[in-house]
Amino acid sequence: MKSITTLLIFLLSGFLTRAQERPNIILFLVDDMGWQDTSLPFGAEKTELNRRYHTPNMERLAKEGVKFTNAYATPVCTPTRVSLMTGMNAAHHRITNWTHIQKNTPTDMDDEFFGQAAWNYNGFTPQKGIPNTIHATALPQILKDNGYFTIHVGKAHWGPMGTPASNPHNLGFMVNVAGNAIGHPQSFKGEENYGNMPGRSTFHAVQDLSEYYGTETFLTEALTLEALKAIETPIKNKQPFFLNLAHYAVHIPLQEDARFYKKYLDAGLQGEEAKYASMIEGMDKSLGDIMDYLIRLKVDHNTVVIFMTDTGGLSLAPPRGGEPHTHNLPLRAGKGSVYEGGIRVPLIVKWPKVARPGSTAEQYVIAEDFFPTILEMAGVKGPKTVQAVDGKSFVPTMKDPRYRDESRALIWHFPNKWQPDGPGINYKSAIRKGEWKLIHHMRRNKLELFNLKNDLGEQKDLASQNPSKVKELSQALSSQLRKWDAPMPVIKSTGERVKFSDQDQ
Amino acid sequence: MKSITTLLIFLLSGFLTRAQERPNIILFLVDDMGWQDTSLPFGAEKTELNRRYHTPNMERLAKEGVKFTNAYATPVCTPTRVSLMTGMNAAHHRITNWTHIQKNTPTDMDDEFFGQAAWNYNGFTPQKGIPNTIHATALPQILKDNGYFTIHVGKAHWGPMGTPASNPHNLGFMVNVAGNAIGHPQSFKGEENYGNMPGRSTFHAVQDLSEYYGTETFLTEALTLEALKAIETPIKNKQPFFLNLAHYAVHIPLQEDARFYKKYLDAGLQGEEAKYASMIEGMDKSLGDIMDYLIRLKVDHNTVVIFMTDTGGLSLAPPRGGEPHTHNLPLRAGKGSVYEGGIRVPLIVKWPKVARPGSTAEQYVIAEDFFPTILEMAGVKGPKTVQAVDGKSFVPTMKDPRYRDESRALIWHFPNKWQPDGPGINYKSAIRKGEWKLIHHMRRNKLELFNLKNDLGEQKDLASQNPSKVKELSQALSSQLRKWDAPMPVIKSTGERVKFSDQDQ
Repeated sequence: MKSITTLLIFLLSGFLTRAQERPNIILFLVDDMGWQDTSLPFGAEKTELNRRYHTPNMERLAKEGVKFTNAYATPVCTPTRVSLMTGMNAAHHRITNWTHIQKNTPTDMDDEFFGQAAWNYNGFTPQKGIPNTIHATALPQILKDNGYFTIHVGKAHWGPMGTPASNPHNLGFMVNVAGNAIGHPQSFKGEENYGNMPGRSTFHAVQDLSEYYGTETFLTEALTLEALKAIETPIKNKQPFFLNLAHYAVHIPLQEDARFYKKYLDAGLQGEEAKYASMIEGMDKSLGDIMDYLIRLKVDHNTVVIFMTDTGGLSLAPPRGGEPHTHNLPLRAGKGSVYEGGIRVPLIVKWPKVARPGSTAEQYVIAEDFFPTILEMAGVKGPKTVQAVDGKSFVPTMKDPRYRDESRALIWHFPNKWQPDGPGINYKSAIRKGEWKLIHHMRRNKLELFNLKNDLGEQKDLASQNPSKVKELSQALSSQLRKWDAPMPVIKSTGERVKFSDQDQ
Repeated sequence: MKSITTLLIFLLSGFLTRAQERPNIILFLVDDMGWQDTSLPFGAEKTELNRRYHTPNMERLAKEGVKFTNAYATPVCTPTRVSLMTGMNAAHHRITNWTHIQKNTPTDMDDEFFGQAAWNYNGFTPQKGIPNTIHATALPQILKDNGYFTIHVGKAHWGPMGTPASNPHNLGFMVNVAGNAIGHPQSFKGEENYGNMPGRSTFHAVQDLSEYYGTETFLTEALTLEALKAIETPIKNKQPFFLNLAHYAVHIPLQEDARFYKKYLDAGLQGEEAKYASMIEGMDKSLGDIMDYLIRLKVDHNTVVIFMTDTGGLSLAPPRGGEPHTHNLPLRAGKGSVYEGGIRVPLIVKWPKVARPGSTAEQYVIAEDFFPTILEMAGVKGPKTVQAVDGKSFVPTMKDPRYRDESRALIWHFPNKWQPDGPGINYKSAIRKGEWKLIHHMRRNKLELFNLKNDLGEQKDLASQNPSKVKELSQALSSQLRKWDAPMPVIKSTGERVKFSDQDQ
């Protein structure tokens, strides 16, 4: 009899433990928001931009979690989003540029000298056999298979219409609100039905939100309300959930969030920049609303909240106001660039009872690291995946923010033409190891070397002074890209592929 | 120690019993499909129409369940859909006509003599305080609160854009695919992106299906595939589910389902009628695919499947081919009418281990009965609802198809103008009790009496021969409508409300 009792206690506690211990996980992903677009300083000191933007809830989250000052995405959005879902580096999944809403439609601009690299312009796929895609096992699928309630709200943008990845259900999300193949909304305004206007709708009209049509509900707010509704059920059922709340903000079109716009006009910001600042604060309010709701439903103590953005801040002007390539200062350049302004992003992670509140971590991490990190947080061990995972869990850093690994190399690869050339924009690769960063300019087979510790703004090229470091990093970069069979552009005049950085052209 | 063991066994068995015993429930709802649009005869004998249409899976379902030969909906779609969700009669919830996609937009046609009845043209709402709506507790909300995984796929049409009911999540559905405020799709064709075509999209473009854009996937098939995906998770998790699979088929626009079209052309059907027949068979294939999937996932023995349609078959021509008001023969008239052709619908219910396979029930049942029936099937007792429920569970009929209750009265109420007048169409009420049916024509305050047992086609008005029955039914009808404060049209010349059938005008 005693053994039966023991068995029953064991079984019963198994039910309860599983339900109670595994944390809920919220990935709060912002679009095109830069490292400086916040009142929370991620650099050594508070900057002019930190004073411009108001993000009290990011500050609040940082007080409750770990602020990562060296977190990275990729220069444009789809590659980051696919890395988050697959744990693969962009050079490895080969979706190096953003994907078009239509199938078989590379998004590269035409170039005089370079032809298109053989990248996976049909995006990610959870199914085999679709040309020009990467087939991989998606993070939410694994979480769902391990008992998580999985929810996607907002921008998806993992692949074009007519392919499985345009439907978040196919990635293992049980609930989808407003996610498909689009990379930006037609409109953020409820008054414009988010673009759903007979005769004027484009493919970018946001779906699923007809409840808010004709109201003053800004898209950021509508998505927040839908996210709160969606997590209520698993919370009530005591089932752990994974929420991928991927805001369309602060991507273009820049439109004023009326709840905050006047404040920035009054502060002297003009035109597009006042709109942009209002979108930032609207996004921040969403974060606060989510945090408040977790407290109200008494699950804040067991919910991981990860704040991240998918790429550096847009710094083309127009559409931004002001001087181009200055919107992420002291970082150089912006979205589309492999300079820090295009890839370094705000990251804050709250993991109650594990990570020390209010701490700061300087260890560098990158988008593909989220896959193993989130699975480790969820207690999923040895998941079966189609792909080899490149990312590295940053749980050690969460547990001890002083943790350092300077031996690791991060790689960025952008063999594409996104917009007209600009600083660090188009046909570039880069590698960071420790405090050193090497950039390979494919157009001229030129190498630049920067020391990020002394020169965060990447102003002083040390390549000629430090040929051994250049050689070391160039070989490491090329060797890894070669291993991944990373796509490279083609030289139009010869028809040959551009060579990796360690080869003569 | 023994008492602890007992307690643990009790707790543990509680977990297991709840998970195992409660059936999954699928409500397979077809739009605008009539009583004769099937190869499964619901009448006494196989008709010409039964020979025209091919619905092998409806036949198969009937062999495994109970065929109801006297099942009723309302003359148009929204009233039935709201009755299904609330358990209320249409005269009680006061959504007597279909709801517009836009708020505050009654859909009644203009009439020379009658002004608009004060019906709830803003539809159903799960929240308080919205003018011209019915506030009630929705069926899926109760099921969700009782541990069911709740899924909506397809047409919703419970209320207009800008109101909560345009979002199935607000009714307690955890998953929504393609449901909002629209009552029909812009297009059934994947090649036309279900209407999502830049510059040409209307509000009727179907949302959430971008995965199938540009493919030959007919809408019926796309919804089926999404429904199968959605039920996979609760099945794997051994959580009971409720699936509301509400097909847009066979509502207009009539478009050929290419998988079956040629077959009907070859059989000699022409134009719209061949298209219609192909849409019927496409819908039937969906039913078969669902049934096959349940077998494949080994839950067919524990899944209730309810086949139902939301109104009688459309019998206006055009858009149908052939003679108007003949498409439901031997029943009189069609959609929009309170004659049997407009309200009598196919109903088949499979409830494994409870209902005897292959049986036929003649007990009359109506849309609002589904609410208490489904809750009883799900084991939900005494649910709290905002509304008083009018429906009556037909579980007794499921358990014994010979069960009869002739004392019950069913009521239809249509104080609206749907289309130009036709047989039984516009400004009518009706009551059925036993074999007798009384119709109140509001225009002329005329009463018709039919004996459905002898005169299914409602050809022989017995009112003058049987004044006592007329009086009895008229009083029962009026008394109930008065109790519900049912909306009535207004006489334009006097400004007064049309009187109920038991009052002199």
